[in-house]
Formats: sequence, C-alpha cells, structure tokens
Amino acid sequence: MLQTKIELRVRYAETDMMGIAYHGNYATWFEMARVHMMDEFGYPYREMERDGYRLPVLEIGVRFRRSVSFDDRVTVEALLRNKPALRIRIEYRLYLGETDVADGFTLHAFLNPDGRPVRPPARFVEGMDAMFGK
Amino acid sequence: MLQTKIELRVRYAETDMMGIAYHGNYATWFEMARVHMMDEFGYPYREMERDGYRLPVLEIGVRFRRSVSFDDRVTVEALLRNKPALRIRIEYRLYLGETDVADGFTLHAFLNPDGRPVRPPARFVEGMDAMFGK
Amino acid sequence: MLQTKIELRVRYAETDMMGIAYHGNYATWFEMARVHMMDEFGYPYREMERDGYRLPVLEIGVRFRRSVSFDDRVTVEALLRNKPALRIRIEYRLYLGETDVADGFTLHAFLNPDGRPVRPPARFVEGMDAMFGK
Amino acid sequence: MLQTKIELRVRYAETDMMGIAYHGNYATWFEMARVHMMDEFGYPYREMERDGYRLPVLEIGVRFRRSVSFDDRVTVEALLRNKPALRIRIEYRLYLGETDVADGFTLHAFLNPDGRPVRPPARFVEGMDAMFGK
Repeated sequence: MLQTKIELRVRYAETDMMGIAYHGNYATWFEMARVHMMDEFGYPYREMERDGYRLPVLEIGVRFRRSVSFDDRVTVEALLRNKPALRIRIEYRLYLGETDVADGFTLHAFLNPDGRPVRPPARFVEGMDAMFGK
Repeated sequence: MLQTKIELRVRYAETDMMGIAYHGNYATWFEMARVHMMDEFGYPYREMERDGYRLPVLEIGVRFRRSVSFDDRVTVEALLRNKPALRIRIEYRLYLGETDVADGFTLHAFLNPDGRPVRPPARFVEGMDAMFGK
Repeated sequence: MLQTKIELRVRYAETDMMGIAYHGNYATWFEMARVHMMDEFGYPYREMERDGYRLPVLEIGVRFRRSVSFDDRVTVEALLRNKPALRIRIEYRLYLGETDVADGFTLHAFLNPDGRPVRPPARFVEGMDAMFGK
Repeated sequence: MLQTKIELRVRYAETDMMGIAYHGNYATWFEMARVHMMDEFGYPYREMERDGYRLPVLEIGVRFRRSVSFDDRVTVEALLRNKPALRIRIEYRLYLGETDVADGFTLHAFLNPDGRPVRPPARFVEGMDAMFGK
C-alpha cells in the first residue's frame, strides 16, 4: 500500500458564487495528490512523461460531503491499495483538520505519446514489485 | 423524461500538455448542459438561486472513452430519467459527431442559502409533476 | 481593420465568492474572441498550429469597468487595428447589452514548435496584405 | 515598501497544448502572492472580507518573458511600493530559480458588499501608516 498526503490552500479563483470551492476543482486537487504520490514513489510524473509515457484519466468519481471555501487548508490523501497491472486505481480522501470533506477515485491506463495503450515502464513495474512483492 | 443538449467548442485554455481537454473541465461542461436543461424545463437556474435555493453537487462520476481537443465541437446531452424527489440525478453523454466520447452523472440536493437541505421550490415541483405525472 | 465579435454566457464555474466572474477568466474570453477572429480572417488557429506555428501571448492588459456574473451574455469584440508585422496586437472590448464592461489587449509573436521566433506563415501574410494592402 | 514571496508548483491542469502554463493562470498566481502579502502584512484577506470589504481587481497587466511548464517551481514576488490611498497598486515578478519569467501588476479598490467604493478599513490604514509613515 502506498499512502501519501499533501496540504493545499483553497484559492479565491477556485471559489464560486455559492461561496465554496467549485466542485470541478477537486479533479485538479486529486491530480496534485497523485503527482506527489509519484514523487514519493520515486518516479516523478514529469520523468515518466519524458520517458514517453502518458497516464490519462479513464474514470473519476467524487463524493462531496462538506464544502470547503477560500483560504481553507485542505489535506488530500492519495492511496494506492493494490499493485497496479495495466490499470491503476488511486483513491483519495479530503480532510479539513479532522473532518472528512470528500472522497473519490481515479482510474488510469498507460499510453504512449500516440495514445496507444502500452505496458507500464520497467522503472514503474520494478518499484511496484519492490513495494507490493512480485 | 427530460432530455436536452448543447454544443460547445473546446477552448485552448481547456487543453493540457497531453494535447487534449483536461478531464477536470468535464464537470464544467456538465454544468453548462444542466443549466441549459433548467432553461428548457422553464425554471432557469439563475431564477432558482434568486428564489433562495442552491443546488450543489453531492456526487459526480465521469467515464472518459475518447479524448477531445482544442476546437472540437462537443455535444453534451443531459438526461433526467426519473422524477426527482429530494435528490436529483442527472446523466450526461458527450459526443463528437456520432462518436461517444464520455458519459457521467451528477447528484444534487436542494439547499437554502445557509446550506441546509430543504424541499424543492414549488415551481420546480409543479413543473416536474406536469412532466412526469403526480 | 479586422473587427469581429462573439457572445458568451458566463459559466457558474467562472464565478467567484464575490458573486462575479473571476477576473482571470477574461484572458480565456479574449482567447475565444481571437480564435473566432482567425476563423473570420480565413485561417483558423487550429490550422495554423497544424502548419507548425504557435502564437503565444507576450503581453496582456485588462481594465475591468463593471463586473459581470453568472448567466450574463457577454459580447466580446476583437479588433486588429493595424497590419501586423512580426508582432500582432489585438484589442478587445466587452459589452453587456450596450454597457461597456471591460477592455484590454494582447500582444503575440509567431514561434515555431521549438519556441523560436519565426516570420508569420505565408498564408497569414497574404491574407493580411489582401486586407490591409501591401 | 512591502515585499513578500511565495513558491508554487505548476499544476498539470494549468498547462495547455503548447506544453506550457496557460497565460490566464498568472492572474491566479498573482492572487496567491497577494493573499500571502496580506498575511504577512497582518490582515489576512479572509478577515478583511469578513469585516465587510471587497478588493476587486480594476486593472491587470502581465508581460510574459519566458514560459514555465508542468512541475516547475515558480517564485512569485509581490511588491507594494507606495502607501495606498483609495487604490492599491501591487507589482509582481515571477522567477524560475534566478531567471525572470514574467512581471505584472494589479490595481484594486475597496468596495463594500454592495459593490460601492469605500474608504479602506481602519485596521488596514493603521497597518499601512505603521509601515510607510503617516
């Protein structure tokens, strides 16, 4: 299991006229948590793209339990529960202090720059083997 | 059943360095389709907010089947399949010409301006009764 | 002189907790007006990119005179006053009905895909010559 | 003079198909630097809004010297050069390490929640007097 977290501060630009963070921004917050997870895993997303891989989102789901607003410090936890094969499923939980505010997931596949599905890069596979066992 | 559609043109601002529309923008496209659905239903979202109601998103899900890119004309269909009670579930389908590109849903509840759950406004209920039967 | 206009409808996602459209979105609205101007000029931006040219923004300026909000129909006028040489300066005016709401400009240069400044494509130059005289 | 800085990491969502950060996002980065400046000044923006003041942008200008891209760590410096009277002008400089990447400014006025121009709050004026002299 790989579990990491970041803290972000809600931007004014991210609020809407309801006075809360617009729900579409959570996709970006998930992305930030995922990018940080890859840092912690030891294969930064930027390097993986340079190596010729893309990791687009195939599916996303979010449940909003409580709104957050401007200036709130939101913790975004990313969780990789199972060793990924061709697809990667990452789960997310958002907190404000001790309070749950949202949870969700994203599902990804590896593509080459032409958009064709490919096997994950060796560096990624080896790291996952080291973490989850072969 | 209430079924409406809009066409949008993908903005350059909506693309990312993968060369495709960033997945987080689909939430906004769903919003545009939903706002148009409320127009067609005869109770524009803006008026409903003026009447003191909010309709925040409780849950969202999107499946991305095929990417779209800058300048693409995307059709976004919104579908209200069942008569809503306290919660409203809307489904969406995105097309590029005849090609399916994505589908998803949002779930909403009615709140008052203080953020408390309330019954839907009478104007909304009456319109739904007229459409789906009492 | 080349003068074109579009109408857009302010999205909920574009509002902020002040209850108005967030100022950063005007850059995107300028982009939409500019893309439409290129359509009217006869050399769509998408085709220019396919031909190997990029037209990044070197400078932007906006004056906000009056706020706009969700659901407002905003007219965005783009104006090319002078025949461009190596740089292109486009001016913008935003209206709500007859009321001025903002104005601004962007300055652009032609780059090749490697990011180096280049002369404008022949198709662009010929079109400009036809419009403004040689 | 009040001079503060933040560091931000460019999000994937902030890039466009040119492979660089979309220029419209700089307005949001300025906002983040401005919010941090108010923290350092001792009157957080959130508190000022709670006290019944709004500080909308009247004017913005940005010059883009060099692009930045995904994962870049960008320093955003905010500078208040002169003691503000009814209007506040803040300048910004963006760096990537030692390299200048952009500069700009925003101009603001104080409004009450109804959108009418008002004098700055006493707490703001006193802080500015303490900093710049009466």
